[in-house]
Amino acid sequence: MTTLRETLSRSRSDVPFDIVRGAYGELHVTNLEASQHFYVDLLGLVESARTPDTLYLRGWEEQTHHSIVLRERPKAAAARLSFRVRTPGDLDALERSFAERECAHERVTGELAGMGEALRVWDPFGFPLEFFHEIARFPTQLQRFDLHRGAPIMRFDHFNIHAPLVEQTTDLWLDLGFRCTEYISTDGDDERMTGCWLTRKPLVHDLAMTAGVGPRLHHLGLATADALGVLRACDQLAAAGHAGAIERGPGRHGVSNAFFVYLRDPDGHRVELYTGDYYTGDHDHPPLRWSVSDPSCRSFWGAQAPDSWYDESSVVLDPNGEPTPLRASGVDERVARSVLMA
Amino acid sequence: MTTLRETLSRSRSDVPFDIVRGAYGELHVTNLEASQHFYVDLLGLVESARTPDTLYLRGWEEQTHHSIVLRERPKAAAARLSFRVRTPGDLDALERSFAERECAHERVTGELAGMGEALRVWDPFGFPLEFFHEIARFPTQLQRFDLHRGAPIMRFDHFNIHAPLVEQTTDLWLDLGFRCTEYISTDGDDERMTGCWLTRKPLVHDLAMTAGVGPRLHHLGLATADALGVLRACDQLAAAGHAGAIERGPGRHGVSNAFFVYLRDPDGHRVELYTGDYYTGDHDHPPLRWSVSDPSCRSFWGAQAPDSWYDESSVVLDPNGEPTPLRASGVDERVARSVLMA
Amino acid sequence: MTTLRETLSRSRSDVPFDIVRGAYGELHVTNLEASQHFYVDLLGLVESARTPDTLYLRGWEEQTHHSIVLRERPKAAAARLSFRVRTPGDLDALERSFAERECAHERVTGELAGMGEALRVWDPFGFPLEFFHEIARFPTQLQRFDLHRGAPIMRFDHFNIHAPLVEQTTDLWLDLGFRCTEYISTDGDDERMTGCWLTRKPLVHDLAMTAGVGPRLHHLGLATADALGVLRACDQLAAAGHAGAIERGPGRHGVSNAFFVYLRDPDGHRVELYTGDYYTGDHDHPPLRWSVSDPSCRSFWGAQAPDSWYDESSVVLDPNGEPTPLRASGVDERVARSVLMA
Amino acid sequence: MTTLRETLSRSRSDVPFDIVRGAYGELHVTNLEASQHFYVDLLGLVESARTPDTLYLRGWEEQTHHSIVLRERPKAAAARLSFRVRTPGDLDALERSFAERECAHERVTGELAGMGEALRVWDPFGFPLEFFHEIARFPTQLQRFDLHRGAPIMRFDHFNIHAPLVEQTTDLWLDLGFRCTEYISTDGDDERMTGCWLTRKPLVHDLAMTAGVGPRLHHLGLATADALGVLRACDQLAAAGHAGAIERGPGRHGVSNAFFVYLRDPDGHRVELYTGDYYTGDHDHPPLRWSVSDPSCRSFWGAQAPDSWYDESSVVLDPNGEPTPLRASGVDERVARSVLMA
Repeated sequence: MTTLRETLSRSRSDVPFDIVRGAYGELHVTNLEASQHFYVDLLGLVESARTPDTLYLRGWEEQTHHSIVLRERPKAAAARLSFRVRTPGDLDALERSFAERECAHERVTGELAGMGEALRVWDPFGFPLEFFHEIARFPTQLQRFDLHRGAPIMRFDHFNIHAPLVEQTTDLWLDLGFRCTEYISTDGDDERMTGCWLTRKPLVHDLAMTAGVGPRLHHLGLATADALGVLRACDQLAAAGHAGAIERGPGRHGVSNAFFVYLRDPDGHRVELYTGDYYTGDHDHPPLRWSVSDPSCRSFWGAQAPDSWYDESSVVLDPNGEPTPLRASGVDERVARSVLMA
Repeated sequence: MTTLRETLSRSRSDVPFDIVRGAYGELHVTNLEASQHFYVDLLGLVESARTPDTLYLRGWEEQTHHSIVLRERPKAAAARLSFRVRTPGDLDALERSFAERECAHERVTGELAGMGEALRVWDPFGFPLEFFHEIARFPTQLQRFDLHRGAPIMRFDHFNIHAPLVEQTTDLWLDLGFRCTEYISTDGDDERMTGCWLTRKPLVHDLAMTAGVGPRLHHLGLATADALGVLRACDQLAAAGHAGAIERGPGRHGVSNAFFVYLRDPDGHRVELYTGDYYTGDHDHPPLRWSVSDPSCRSFWGAQAPDSWYDESSVVLDPNGEPTPLRASGVDERVARSVLMA
Repeated sequence: MTTLRETLSRSRSDVPFDIVRGAYGELHVTNLEASQHFYVDLLGLVESARTPDTLYLRGWEEQTHHSIVLRERPKAAAARLSFRVRTPGDLDALERSFAERECAHERVTGELAGMGEALRVWDPFGFPLEFFHEIARFPTQLQRFDLHRGAPIMRFDHFNIHAPLVEQTTDLWLDLGFRCTEYISTDGDDERMTGCWLTRKPLVHDLAMTAGVGPRLHHLGLATADALGVLRACDQLAAAGHAGAIERGPGRHGVSNAFFVYLRDPDGHRVELYTGDYYTGDHDHPPLRWSVSDPSCRSFWGAQAPDSWYDESSVVLDPNGEPTPLRASGVDERVARSVLMA
Repeated sequence: MTTLRETLSRSRSDVPFDIVRGAYGELHVTNLEASQHFYVDLLGLVESARTPDTLYLRGWEEQTHHSIVLRERPKAAAARLSFRVRTPGDLDALERSFAERECAHERVTGELAGMGEALRVWDPFGFPLEFFHEIARFPTQLQRFDLHRGAPIMRFDHFNIHAPLVEQTTDLWLDLGFRCTEYISTDGDDERMTGCWLTRKPLVHDLAMTAGVGPRLHHLGLATADALGVLRACDQLAAAGHAGAIERGPGRHGVSNAFFVYLRDPDGHRVELYTGDYYTGDHDHPPLRWSVSDPSCRSFWGAQAPDSWYDESSVVLDPNGEPTPLRASGVDERVARSVLMA
């Protein structure tokens, strides 16, 4: 019988496409002014472009056109998780792969500013994904320290999704060429994962998943330069009257080692400020397991995440632009932990 | 009618003694080995002297013999809050002052290592205080960066006591020449204080009080060099298997502006790592008021302190060495806040 | 014979006035726009008031009206070193003291915004000093993290003067009630000081002196919250095209332990960003001696200060507003070090 | 005519091997005890293994057996620059490639602890390189914060070599599949490079070169978690009496944006503590050019590197273990800068 660790350690050398990294998230927001205030004035992201209903943002080291797209729409939702691929041909190979899985997919061009053709697919679990190769570039602003605001935020780092079927969803991403760097699982014979971290770039993740009601977007992870940037962001939010946006932390993760804080934007979309993970690029880098009974896995210092962090997330959209129906998860980390610790 | 602000702002230019600062706390601990591991190995305090049942500790910039004294005794307690005075004559003046208040008092010499004569008094509220002038000195270790451990902890900063009668207790300390730098009070006509910060040195406090069951010692405040030292202490505690010692934070205080974390030692004595308050030495520095209804007063980022932080504290000892009987407080910050916010 | 250490350790309990701290420096600048850009836009000081030819600045924790005053004048100079006293009567006592020394002195009122009456004196060595009691207050901006710019700079910390007669000048300040916390001196029988740190507030200094051509102002010391603030200031200056303003550092001082950088403003006035010294308030805190032959005294990491740091300074003004004639120093730290190390 | 920028931007999609990253450097040291004190006690690297004449070290996040190997030998030298490859077959492909270039090469097994077979080659410029696939692993110590010492150093980051023929040497590494991320070059028609940064991992470099007398190893770059780690390392070195080991900095680089300090070990081998560069993994990430006349390229804050930094380096060894003869460089950054700025 194949153990979970063996499954997570398998390497797929034959993947016919090359996904470079998680690249941007598109969020539907109900009040673009309020969101602009939060992301630009308070968090200090750089504005790349703005149309009447859409705001394109990037971090201070990013040279690609956007890593967060905010579109004003009547209902808040996570519209898209977008990944960059290495060559134009990778889009064709990915399209074939998702077509074989009988997933809805389409090619779009010019729908967003600064982008070439993109492949949009809905994966078998309902997550709205996008893959693209071409994107406009800006000169770096990394060393415009005189202009930096907020933490500052350097770059997009990762997606985290709420997935009811963690094992099956992990299997899809391993097939897409991702490697598992860390995971949380239950003890005993019927080992179940409650969290899994998967990556293409040689850090801890481009995509993580948290067991829970889904498909939903749990959060967008944004990288800061150091831990003091995370503290500064909290100080600035609170000073501006937005302490209520701080949902969890700051603190140290067990998984990933990152120093973090979780924030909620005006529509409740969650963003994580994240800094200090580690290099994972060697081919034999093994997945690191954490027992769900180890209280340090989510918070190295032992603080319990609030229920909102487990329960609330952003709905995603189906091919018709409607919220994707939700299904419950068979495993709940809080329950699993209580049982184990009882 | 005299308002609370007026009372707290009054200056006493005629105080016949000069208390320099809060100097050291003596704690009774039930297992000196366990306490030594916590304070020396994990927090990294410097050991000045050790006898079979007593450990004398100081911070890395401190040149006086001790700022924490740990004595092994059958029951945990806070034995003493000790203050340094500027001249030997100050001890006489203080003795007269407490004698007039009909407080128990005694002179002791040589009971603790490194100290000259000390005046011990029990204030009208039952707190066991000490005043001394003479203490042995060590060369500074401030720049022995190669030896520093832990945060590192630089020096003792303050006492925080659990006081049932905040206004009356404050009045005593104003009489002793302390100035009020900040306070938390209820809104409306019947203004009641739930917290008060009082100082002799020109920072935020040498002694703070928190409304609650008392007389008890709420915590000893220890200064670190910067916020990253506080995070490092958490990382090291957790890595050594003591994440459970982290009770509250890390976070930013509203009051004092300090970055903090509260820890509990093996006997439950609370210590705060504290850094980043401000200069208060000008004679016209006014007390800063926070409304109890302002959630940022205790935690600038809005996190609620756990109930243990409000409810648990170290008992103090009466002149016979027995735990001093407790009395309830007429005001509870949590209740006051709920009422106001309802 | 009285040794230097004994001299520096003597305490004057009979000083008939109480100087609280170094409070503000007044600089003459030749282009107020350029200076405003440097101090406000780049360093991020808070503007308290502005008239056509005068700019009043303060740090983010400061509640008194100004700690730097910039006046546009045809020639750059240091116009005044100003100290705050505890009571109005202290001004009278100080006036008597300087009159006895036959120093030029005058009372002024209303010459600067936000101030009450002030006593201006020229000390026996030609330094233009001021003492005042009354100054307007602002609410604290310490926690307006959303508005902070630059390092940020928290408060004025100290003056450093270029003094040809270090021992004699030190003697004056000891007479004014200052304590010596650290000093640098030559080895051997004819011990000469090349630097001396003197204080009223319980940190390392309100006034330091460096042996050299004088009387001149060597620099104004401004406190930042932590070492990263010093690095941030350098990054921001360089990003804005002002890397040339960075004269020395950043680095760690041996003396004072502070992390520092020295900057030169558009007129060449020197300012130090300074953070991380230590508590010195105990009455028996002894002066710490550094041998001039110890390369770590000025830079703990061993870097040599550039010659400009030893040679260049701001001229001060005599009672007629003219530059005070200069005299050479009998000792040069660089020479003394070379001789000793040869 | 092909411009330098075009040359540096070309991508080689047909490289028949996959070099993962720069992996370890082997240094010959003349006193292993002294080197152990420097690298283990002062810098805080983790000891993986020790034989009578060889010490194997790694950083706190590293799981592979070693990233620095120190061997006691009569003369100090840089023995090897070693890179990890993705598959065993990559060694064969690399061997063919270097054989075609008529470079000396050999296969070795078991010469160093913890390693499988390795391919050793001497490139056409005389640099002693190694490629390997198999290496022993340790569990991560990343979160043993209670054991961390020094900065701490997290992982090996890069090699920097002194190369007389920068353009030709760059060409070799582009052929090996490296991408150029940044470079410094002279202005005008005869554009010459004085520095070039080349990478396989998606950060700024695995190998940089500095124009100068060579072939020599300029330094080994070691990554710390943040800028404060660099400052802490300086503080600790100085406190332990090794301030003389600090050659240049700390400061901010223009190129790479990293915060850095350069140290010299007991044999004069140079190590850089390095932190804070940026993601470069996108296929269209363009090389960033700095003019040699821009003083911010080497030090963003404008400080001049000392001559020793340009002139001194570690000799490398030929196939017979003898020092490789040196040749001068046709370009000197200091001269080029002076000419341009005249």
